[in-house]
Amino acid sequence: MEIMQVVGSLVCTQRVAGLDHCYLRVLRTSKGKINVAVDPVGVSVGNWVFTASGSAARFACPNPEALTDLTIGGIIDFWSPDG
Amino acid sequence: MEIMQVVGSLVCTQRVAGLDHCYLRVLRTSKGKINVAVDPVGVSVGNWVFTASGSAARFACPNPEALTDLTIGGIIDFWSPDG
Amino acid sequence: MEIMQVVGSLVCTQRVAGLDHCYLRVLRTSKGKINVAVDPVGVSVGNWVFTASGSAARFACPNPEALTDLTIGGIIDFWSPDG
Amino acid sequence: MEIMQVVGSLVCTQRVAGLDHCYLRVLRTSKGKINVAVDPVGVSVGNWVFTASGSAARFACPNPEALTDLTIGGIIDFWSPDG
Amino acid sequence: MEIMQVVGSLVCTQRVAGLDHCYLRVLRTSKGKINVAVDPVGVSVGNWVFTASGSAARFACPNPEALTDLTIGGIIDFWSPDG
Repeated sequence: MEIMQVVGSLVCTQRVAGLDHCYLRVLRTSKGKINVAVDPVGVSVGNWVFTASGSAARFACPNPEALTDLTIGGIIDFWSPDG
Repeated sequence: MEIMQVVGSLVCTQRVAGLDHCYLRVLRTSKGKINVAVDPVGVSVGNWVFTASGSAARFACPNPEALTDLTIGGIIDFWSPDG
Repeated sequence: MEIMQVVGSLVCTQRVAGLDHCYLRVLRTSKGKINVAVDPVGVSVGNWVFTASGSAARFACPNPEALTDLTIGGIIDFWSPDG
Repeated sequence: MEIMQVVGSLVCTQRVAGLDHCYLRVLRTSKGKINVAVDPVGVSVGNWVFTASGSAARFACPNPEALTDLTIGGIIDFWSPDG
Repeated sequence: MEIMQVVGSLVCTQRVAGLDHCYLRVLRTSKGKINVAVDPVGVSVGNWVFTASGSAARFACPNPEALTDLTIGGIIDFWSPDG
């Protein structure tokens, strides 16, 4: 899993059905790479979270056939990027 | 998921059957990397989209055994690459 | 999916059974990275092709349990690497 | 599989159910990249371990639907990063 | 698939059951990146091999639930890294 910070939400009116009513968050890695993840946890901007990718990402959603390859797994209680 | 921009379409007369009649789009990441994705949404050149990779990419297609590892999940209403 | 150019074939007398009688091609990305892919299409050296990776790569083979994580999906009619 | 060193544990009070009671360890690759992995082996800080990613990571857990894409596979008896 | 060279074996007394009695080899890519792979073929140090990753890696093992995301697929008869 990777550690990323929540930087915002994504609005997509036109999208495939497989995403049902999932919230889409914009995340940024410590190297600045931007990703989009499904949020089953309920995060806020600024939270440091860990994410699961690949087929595990689908198991984290209520519907395991959800069209996601990246899902937020949890909010880290305390994290400083410089470790 | 990743965020990319649609830059064109791909024409491949000779291809494996598993792609049926999917449209193939050429996408570019903000770092300039070129990818090919299946388009179940109906995008136009210039649209900013998010994509799903891995096994999730197949679930986004009408036929879940489609030979794709990258599928367009939706058109982003508003996106500026500099965030 | 990625776009690569066919640069040759790979000969492996000693290999696992899961590859049956698949042709193995050596491919190169526009950045020079070398990959090996199964070829269900019948390509020639110099062709520009697109490839599928992950579990989708296995669905493109006659035997979906083939030991491949990269399969050639089709020959691109016209492609110039500088786009 | 990759070789990484254990540098600590991760505490996440708010996380998806799919992680049950798995221990989450923070690992670092020889290039300094930080990852989070599930630990079914019982490692200590400083151990060099190898990890499995993708769907294999889930099979290493007691519950194969665990939400992990990286799992510690074992502790390496002797490893020096400079090889 | 990727092409790598065998540089040694890995000894892990403490490891998850999912690896049964698989041999673990240490491989190096032409760029110097170190990986660990399961060896169902029986390679020697110095051999150039191709590897399969992801779910395909598990199909190459006698037990398809083996905890591996990288498996040696075969020994290349002749390979020079400069191509």
